[in-house]
Amino acid sequence: MKSKQSLGRNLPIGVFDSGLGGLTVVREILKQLPREHIIYFGDLARLPYGIKSKRQITEFSIENTEFLLHRGVKAIVIACNSSASAAGNVLRKRYTIPILDVIRPAAREAIRVSVKKRIGVIGTQATVASGAYERILRSFDSGVRVQVQACPLFVPLVEEGILSGSIAGSIVKQYIKPLVDGRIDSLILGCTHYPLLRSAIQKFVGPKICLIDSAKPTVLNLISLLSEKKLLRKSRGKGKLSVFVSDLQQSFLKIGERFLVEPLRDVKVVRLTEVATVKRKWLA
Amino acid sequence: MKSKQSLGRNLPIGVFDSGLGGLTVVREILKQLPREHIIYFGDLARLPYGIKSKRQITEFSIENTEFLLHRGVKAIVIACNSSASAAGNVLRKRYTIPILDVIRPAAREAIRVSVKKRIGVIGTQATVASGAYERILRSFDSGVRVQVQACPLFVPLVEEGILSGSIAGSIVKQYIKPLVDGRIDSLILGCTHYPLLRSAIQKFVGPKICLIDSAKPTVLNLISLLSEKKLLRKSRGKGKLSVFVSDLQQSFLKIGERFLVEPLRDVKVVRLTEVATVKRKWLA
Repeated sequence: MKSKQSLGRNLPIGVFDSGLGGLTVVREILKQLPREHIIYFGDLARLPYGIKSKRQITEFSIENTEFLLHRGVKAIVIACNSSASAAGNVLRKRYTIPILDVIRPAAREAIRVSVKKRIGVIGTQATVASGAYERILRSFDSGVRVQVQACPLFVPLVEEGILSGSIAGSIVKQYIKPLVDGRIDSLILGCTHYPLLRSAIQKFVGPKICLIDSAKPTVLNLISLLSEKKLLRKSRGKGKLSVFVSDLQQSFLKIGERFLVEPLRDVKVVRLTEVATVKRKWLA
Repeated sequence: MKSKQSLGRNLPIGVFDSGLGGLTVVREILKQLPREHIIYFGDLARLPYGIKSKRQITEFSIENTEFLLHRGVKAIVIACNSSASAAGNVLRKRYTIPILDVIRPAAREAIRVSVKKRIGVIGTQATVASGAYERILRSFDSGVRVQVQACPLFVPLVEEGILSGSIAGSIVKQYIKPLVDGRIDSLILGCTHYPLLRSAIQKFVGPKICLIDSAKPTVLNLISLLSEKKLLRKSRGKGKLSVFVSDLQQSFLKIGERFLVEPLRDVKVVRLTEVATVKRKWLA
């Protein structure tokens, strides 16, 4: 008979995002923790979150978390900066399961690599309005100078597949120039969509500014946490990735494959009413 | 004692959209029908619709319609092309109340003004994928040549307030050039956000191509319909505009005022759960 702990080890890791940008984090989990099972939920019916209110994003994030809990997961990664900045603390207070997000690991990495302690952060309107990055960066180093910039056109650009060329270049310049003028030496890509614009951004800022993508530091954090709680899966077999979405649009799947850098198989649609039912059941 | 009909006359006109673009239609109702009361619902929590599936847009549209019906309206205008093209016919079959949308009036106007019968249509991905404009235009004139183009970056551009300048210009050029090359002589702005990009588009296409905004023909259609059903409000007093939204983001209200071209007062937030409750009540 298996012990409770070994059962826990074999449970999947839950990951959610407003859309499919969070698959950049899944990609890193697949690389670094290939034995783990993963359940991903992308709220395609109600995306994007980054232009919505804190209250609304929190409500959606609770529903997403409860959907994952209902399916049985051993830990949850909030792979969406807007969701993490609006609801990360609310979710951690509400549930006992380990809940990680992409903000703290990216901030710690920025503090580690920044020499001049001048850090730029780009993100959605919701992430920028929350002030989450400034608070966490200053909690690590009170002397750090932080400059933030909302980039509302970046998500639609990525979803349109416009990752280079003159239109992408002009929009990158418009948003990033104030940060370069402010002499940052490192720049946090504070949205899981932005790694796809990495080349266009690096081209504009030049080689001296270090770009920080949250996926790798988040997964390193996940490894420490699972290891500490003795929840790493020991099996030799490869883990299974299951992808759930609240709406299915073929064009989105193509974008999803860009984030994951491999074909997206086994995508299941959960209706919003089902997510809501799960919520009611969970709270009942 | 007032007759049933005079009570009906005094009910508001219901208007809904995924966001606040539909206020371009409200603006035209205020101009042409200043005595009418209007209830507007903008689904800010779940916008945009144009990148979502037909099934999902239909579900949202049914909820929005039921929210308006529950508040008591004498007619409904679907002031959202994505919603109209995905769900217009479903809604008209489902309810007995008059339900108008922005597609048929804009198509009729295009047929009226086009000399060469070469009509271009721009819209969201959902509107273009539905084929609604081609079907309706061909039902009016089987010989018409129709060229459609999805413009997914236009909505975020408008919401960002980037209505002119080099970025807007390059994006307009990228989407509209194939239509100009196809020698259209009139162009339907098939999304209630697009009138705000009218100058940028007209600048690119030149003065010979006629741009068609659905607001005016839609309201002319609304007037005929209300008049025919003896539902025009007779009172001398000015009508009242009530605006409901499913999420409240301050930046959106500023954009809303651009659509309405006057201050947005009296905006109330309805929670999505309330919309869903209304739905359940209605169907019970």
